[in-house]
Amino acid sequence: MTVPYDALAALTEVVGSGGLRSGDAIPVRNRKDASKTEEGLPALLVMPRTTGEVSAVLSICSRFSLPVVVQGGMTGLAGGAAPMAGEVALSLERLNGVEEIDPVNRTMTVLAGTPLAIVQEKAAEAGFLYGVDLGARGSCTIGGNVATNAGGVQVLRYGMTRRNVLGVEVVTADGRVISHLKKVVKNNAGYDWTQLFIGSEGTLGVVTRVLLALQPAVTGIQTALCAAGSIDKALAVLNRLEARLGGSLLAFEAMWPEYMKAATEQGGLPCPFSARPELTLVVEAAMGTAAAGEDAFAEALAELAEEGLLDDVLIAQSSRDRQRFWAYREANYEFYRALPPGIHFDVSIPLGAMETAVTLLRQRVAARSSAALPIVFGHLADSNLHLSVHAEAIDLSGFADIVYALVEEMQGSISAEHGVGVLKRPYLGMSRSDAELALMTSLKRTLDPGNILNRGRILPV
Amino acid sequence: MTVPYDALAALTEVVGSGGLRSGDAIPVRNRKDASKTEEGLPALLVMPRTTGEVSAVLSICSRFSLPVVVQGGMTGLAGGAAPMAGEVALSLERLNGVEEIDPVNRTMTVLAGTPLAIVQEKAAEAGFLYGVDLGARGSCTIGGNVATNAGGVQVLRYGMTRRNVLGVEVVTADGRVISHLKKVVKNNAGYDWTQLFIGSEGTLGVVTRVLLALQPAVTGIQTALCAAGSIDKALAVLNRLEARLGGSLLAFEAMWPEYMKAATEQGGLPCPFSARPELTLVVEAAMGTAAAGEDAFAEALAELAEEGLLDDVLIAQSSRDRQRFWAYREANYEFYRALPPGIHFDVSIPLGAMETAVTLLRQRVAARSSAALPIVFGHLADSNLHLSVHAEAIDLSGFADIVYALVEEMQGSISAEHGVGVLKRPYLGMSRSDAELALMTSLKRTLDPGNILNRGRILPV
Repeated sequence: MTVPYDALAALTEVVGSGGLRSGDAIPVRNRKDASKTEEGLPALLVMPRTTGEVSAVLSICSRFSLPVVVQGGMTGLAGGAAPMAGEVALSLERLNGVEEIDPVNRTMTVLAGTPLAIVQEKAAEAGFLYGVDLGARGSCTIGGNVATNAGGVQVLRYGMTRRNVLGVEVVTADGRVISHLKKVVKNNAGYDWTQLFIGSEGTLGVVTRVLLALQPAVTGIQTALCAAGSIDKALAVLNRLEARLGGSLLAFEAMWPEYMKAATEQGGLPCPFSARPELTLVVEAAMGTAAAGEDAFAEALAELAEEGLLDDVLIAQSSRDRQRFWAYREANYEFYRALPPGIHFDVSIPLGAMETAVTLLRQRVAARSSAALPIVFGHLADSNLHLSVHAEAIDLSGFADIVYALVEEMQGSISAEHGVGVLKRPYLGMSRSDAELALMTSLKRTLDPGNILNRGRILPV
Repeated sequence: MTVPYDALAALTEVVGSGGLRSGDAIPVRNRKDASKTEEGLPALLVMPRTTGEVSAVLSICSRFSLPVVVQGGMTGLAGGAAPMAGEVALSLERLNGVEEIDPVNRTMTVLAGTPLAIVQEKAAEAGFLYGVDLGARGSCTIGGNVATNAGGVQVLRYGMTRRNVLGVEVVTADGRVISHLKKVVKNNAGYDWTQLFIGSEGTLGVVTRVLLALQPAVTGIQTALCAAGSIDKALAVLNRLEARLGGSLLAFEAMWPEYMKAATEQGGLPCPFSARPELTLVVEAAMGTAAAGEDAFAEALAELAEEGLLDDVLIAQSSRDRQRFWAYREANYEFYRALPPGIHFDVSIPLGAMETAVTLLRQRVAARSSAALPIVFGHLADSNLHLSVHAEAIDLSGFADIVYALVEEMQGSISAEHGVGVLKRPYLGMSRSDAELALMTSLKRTLDPGNILNRGRILPV
């Protein structure tokens, strides 16, 4: 499918020749996302600079029935932003910038193409914190974060992107601009329609502008690396810390022994404990400015160790220590390269089923291939596991069936935070009932009757 | 409009004669909600006991095009549950009970008709806390809380009902049961359609079952009654406490001097401070079990007083003191009766505009009638004001125009937490754009094409 001349002319009139690319002039970055999908050349790359231009572009695409793929930072892991044949790539990279920080209302108004790291920096400069943080912060954009309801390492404290968004401006497939950007925490005046767009992966509308809630900057950050003998014990630790430290906990991340083996052997990090525990935990809290906070954190962990819920506790004495502890949690980006090829998953498992799930995963992976290595880590407090299976010279896709069948059995989710895109679409029915899928389809039809927006992402074509 | 014989027979077959009432046999409780709407006799009262029965009832009503009003605890303040002529009242009062508390996953599964107070009690018995609390706790039901996205006094810490709901089961107008009750924190597998039903006031579907997130029980509750000279100072106090005490703050409630005058003069409570400050604040935090928590709370407030941000600070030394402090905040239920007749509002105003808004409110109310008394209090941290205007022998409805015009001017919301129902429907356009209203209407048409569910609530008939 090529773009008809009239459509091309109309689009050029809207964004100017500087806002259009085609053929070889389309940069590699706009041809695939961060997943293992194939590179694809869009029929055209359009880069509007304003909401008005996005609206005009979508009106034209709607009129000519041109399918559109929406692009942000291209860091998605589900293939959602990778162009399919004949699609117009609508990239928000030039719709970029922090428009306003309002310190009294504690809000930030930001254009969709702005990288998360910029949002975080500008918030910090103004004495605030933005509640979402994740590894791709330097490249991913706030529009993409909203479109995928991004999670990350601070969900325990601040929730996913949904909870950090006070309002959005979206453009629907027909070019209508719908906006809710009121600086109020509560608004029960009619349906909170903004919720529908958050996490819809660009299939219902294009997010162009976001009103974010800012948090007070955190102080007195305390970090520990802990060893726990089982998931049950780790969960008991989590419950106890939450009760004891109030709302101070920031992160509670878990790494299973196969992960720590790779982090130390392939990743080259030193073994933190004399023995390798079932669970290595990164625990972080913001204890406030009171001098007693530091002691309270250490005392709480010491007490848990005395009771036998933790086998070992290391408390960071410096920011260098803190970095050393977090290095384990971020080691996977490095050590994956040294491992055999892998297939990666991002799933939710109810906490009560997690011990069983990890045991069954190991058994079933081993039964399929004795050489295959399962690596498990994740945001334990959020019931979110990142897992991968690595093996040489065998078809890895078979492990997807193992993992997703396990997720279905445990009544979890096939996508905790990465979204569905095209890669997980075949498995959606394992986490959603027919009634849910029918409802999603009817919402898609209502908002995008021509099915031009991110066609084939989440739902079948 | 009367119910056709065939429909009546079909409904009787579903719920049995014990589940049906008509005419004089319909209790007064099912004829009006807690707002000042007129009493209305529904064509029929139907009280299903199961989700299957709700589904069958709605299928029948759909088939016979019978309009349905959904009823919970009848504590709504927007007229949403009050029957209009010819409506079948679908009351969930018999769909009642806590089905499960899962301590590992920290969830509670509960039927829609269960009172909030029961949810709170059962959570406490199991060692947890449910994050939503509000005055009507004894009568309001969890289904109604979800339908209206209820707020209350702990939104600062736990958010509104939306944030405390992990999943819902709903029945749509045609009787379809759609369910998402997975015990996971994160689920980005497709649209989070549950969000659409939360806060839709029963116009898109009937909530029958809810999966709630439970919080760790809070410990070390510290309460203070404080005097602040202005909203700006009160907001500075809020920011400082949030930064200093981490996530420990539970409540930050404000009462303006007219409110405190009524609480002391009509309500009979003693004056807490030697002078009446512009803002009287109830500040509450859960400082955890560490012994240092108590000191940290008192120290933080003392420091703010030294800096001149607070004029006076009283810290509760006992649970009796705590009750005495909260008595001011809850005095309105009593003193309203001793004041001239009033008209009540529940609005959001951006924090940055609140000082201006209160000043303008006083001026404009006085300009309309020098005898009129404006009473203002609310959840300051949530940008949510509850306000009322009291006057003898004049038409109070004119004050609605004053208040809602002010809200529109300040870019606030005409309903912060009470919803729209029928009473605020005429003013919805002052908080929502035409594009938003058109989107809401299209969602309503998609989910309830026959417009049988809570017709005329939120949106025009």
